[in-house]
Amino acid sequence: MPSEHYIGGFHAVLAALEDGRHKPFEVLLSDSRNDERSRRVRALAQSLSVAVRTVARSDLDLKAPGLRHQGVLALMPQVELAGEDVLLAPADEGRLFLALDGVQDPHNLGACLRTAEAAGVSAVIVPRDRAAGLTAVARKVAAGSAERVPVASVTNLSRTLAKLKDAGYWLTGLDGDGVETIYDVDLRGPVVLVMGAEGEGMRRLTRENCDRVVRIPMLGKVESLNVSAAAAVCLFEALRQRLGATRG
Amino acid sequence: MPSEHYIGGFHAVLAALEDGRHKPFEVLLSDSRNDERSRRVRALAQSLSVAVRTVARSDLDLKAPGLRHQGVLALMPQVELAGEDVLLAPADEGRLFLALDGVQDPHNLGACLRTAEAAGVSAVIVPRDRAAGLTAVARKVAAGSAERVPVASVTNLSRTLAKLKDAGYWLTGLDGDGVETIYDVDLRGPVVLVMGAEGEGMRRLTRENCDRVVRIPMLGKVESLNVSAAAAVCLFEALRQRLGATRG
Repeated sequence: MPSEHYIGGFHAVLAALEDGRHKPFEVLLSDSRNDERSRRVRALAQSLSVAVRTVARSDLDLKAPGLRHQGVLALMPQVELAGEDVLLAPADEGRLFLALDGVQDPHNLGACLRTAEAAGVSAVIVPRDRAAGLTAVARKVAAGSAERVPVASVTNLSRTLAKLKDAGYWLTGLDGDGVETIYDVDLRGPVVLVMGAEGEGMRRLTRENCDRVVRIPMLGKVESLNVSAAAAVCLFEALRQRLGATRG
Repeated sequence: MPSEHYIGGFHAVLAALEDGRHKPFEVLLSDSRNDERSRRVRALAQSLSVAVRTVARSDLDLKAPGLRHQGVLALMPQVELAGEDVLLAPADEGRLFLALDGVQDPHNLGACLRTAEAAGVSAVIVPRDRAAGLTAVARKVAAGSAERVPVASVTNLSRTLAKLKDAGYWLTGLDGDGVETIYDVDLRGPVVLVMGAEGEGMRRLTRENCDRVVRIPMLGKVESLNVSAAAAVCLFEALRQRLGATRG
């Protein structure tokens, strides 16, 4: 990954400016835009002493190929992926991790991050050598969550999972052949939800680490949900149970 | 929409061949492929008397611009969108509809269809003039569900919703400002889940038709979920309640 990178689109750029933790080096606005949202970006950047440059739209296309930038880019400092240490705080009741074993599609990674933040996930765990990076596309789809949810990139996912199990987490793998459903198990304690790659599922070693393997019950002829839809179903089932527990 | 269209990718083409209801006019395979999946497509097509043509990969790119076709396309007959009549069967307990008020992104429409089928949705309702069409992209993302879940395209969404209300359906709108959450309400009877467009939400008239407006509880700083993630959370909460009801 380069030492700095562009994010694009009004939602992502405004989120980065408002968040304040990782101030952009500069903001580039297309010279073809002069609407309310672009004025808002400009005003907010200037209030934070972030330089704003007006450039041709084609320059934006060149700087961020393939990104639907809507006429705005922000050059961001490299956000270091977190190390294993963010995971090793005591396993209190509130902690919920999402481990993605080999999710290669940056759209899916970004979608999982956005949903994970909304469901109260403390960190997302990805294996260093077998995951989509936090590319501009992933960050845009994440709509700000990539800057807020720690993504721990670990060298050896099985070893990390084993450590978390020792620390008191329940490792809950998701697979279509699970006997119990996600609705049959208690997701209120410290839990790591482990999901495999699109099409392939979890690797054998990852799966063997799990305390339990559960499935999402499904009707129709669908073989599997998209990984980000499956993550949404499971993470919000965990949140539902946790909110229920709070209410008594 | 044209009178015929291409679908692409092995998952979608195999699903269309196996489904059998809408036989492709022909299948196009890239001349650069001779692997197990392409042989499976060829054998299945031939067993159904569907012509298979081997063409240059660049021809596939030209025929289906922007589609990640993986070297295979199938030319499909136009699937008529269903009319309002598919909705007007008696409102028995098992029926669940998803109404999408203005979802413009074909990725989101396709993702919603795939999730809807898995959750047991009887039909998806879209307003004719304010929705993404069932494009090749939507069909590919739907991974076969676009051919299996009826999509009812209606001229006047509010009028259709009013009719369904009269027929005994509970119209349940989703919006971030709902007072109750999706987990507080009974989703077991005949229900229409109504969702608005990305960013804008439901239109006023659509919302006024709803018997209740509920929200998904969310943590973090996320303002909203992506529409397909939100659909996954709500539709599977409905399925969870329905399965629970079945089990007693």
